Amino acid sequence: MPMIHVELFEGRSGEQKREFVEVLTRETCRILKCEPAAVDIIFQDVKKSNWAHAGKLAAES
Amino acid sequence: MPMIHVELFEGRSGEQKREFVEVLTRETCRILKCEPAAVDIIFQDVKKSNWAHAGKLAAES
Amino acid sequence: MPMIHVELFEGRSGEQKREFVEVLTRETCRILKCEPAAVDIIFQDVKKSNWAHAGKLAAES
Amino acid sequence: MPMIHVELFEGRSGEQKREFVEVLTRETCRILKCEPAAVDIIFQDVKKSNWAHAGKLAAES
Amino acid sequence: MPMIHVELFEGRSGEQKREFVEVLTRETCRILKCEPAAVDIIFQDVKKSNWAHAGKLAAES
Amino acid sequence: MPMIHVELFEGRSGEQKREFVEVLTRETCRILKCEPAAVDIIFQDVKKSNWAHAGKLAAES
Repeated sequence: MPMIHVELFEGRSGEQKREFVEVLTRETCRILKCEPAAVDIIFQDVKKSNWAHAGKLAAES
Repeated sequence: MPMIHVELFEGRSGEQKREFVEVLTRETCRILKCEPAAVDIIFQDVKKSNWAHAGKLAAES
Repeated sequence: MPMIHVELFEGRSGEQKREFVEVLTRETCRILKCEPAAVDIIFQDVKKSNWAHAGKLAAES
Repeated sequence: MPMIHVELFEGRSGEQKREFVEVLTRETCRILKCEPAAVDIIFQDVKKSNWAHAGKLAAES
Repeated sequence: MPMIHVELFEGRSGEQKREFVEVLTRETCRILKCEPAAVDIIFQDVKKSNWAHAGKLAAES
Repeated sequence: MPMIHVELFEGRSGEQKREFVEVLTRETCRILKCEPAAVDIIFQDVKKSNWAHAGKLAAES
């Protein structure tokens, strides 16, 4: 606890994900008062052809 | 709001997804009283080897 | 297949949910070519104090 | 995009959630290069009787 | 790893959940080759008024 | 009901998944008192570059 899922467009670099999980874990522990070992983060890369906003697929916006 | 996730077998066409998000967004706005810009839809294509029903993977049914 | 999850602010009526699942199931079957018995829809009512957009909880926007 | 779900034990204060979404949105935008308006965060409060780790419900650990 | 989510109708007892997580964790470790400490299970109790199958809410079937 | 999602590192064999869904469905029915036809299980294979624990991506631990 906590368990964090992040859905984002595919294409972010390994370097961005590495920094993101470092920062997010540190801030989670600071604000929610928990140990780093308690924090899991899962990214789900989503294709623009699989995400729609306002009735349109992002691939076609 | 709202946020809609749709898990389905892989293999649906872009045309099917396009029509689906148009219709689903329109009906969501009509019934739940919200603006199109408030509706996000994410598809998750699932392989038949990753979905089981009644104890059997769909790939083997 | 398919499995649909709908996250929305709490407060929608049973009547709205009833109409929503009828329409969504019918359109899903028509567009994605499946039987009604294959469609499951789960609503998750979310409190405004648990949903943030643009860095602010909806309860405070 | 992105869409972030945070499952955590119930009991965190509104103040903790408020700070968490502010910081998380700011860092998400900085690292993943997006606008605040693109970031949604949903908390799901989980009872300790509904979360198991290592085969035991947290309520009984 | 792994992370398991179980959505079920509300109303199952603590005893059922306790047995379920014990058995599920043991079988997960045996079959997927992992340690118990690697297995997290989260239950989500769903009201029958929030789950639809074949176009009807379970509360009305 | 119930609907079970299993997130795990990619690389498990079809044979492991086949045994897992058989056992999990059988135990679910026994403990939660339901029919096999009511049990759906979806696997989501996660790359080690998409799962972080304790602030580090699994790909780099």
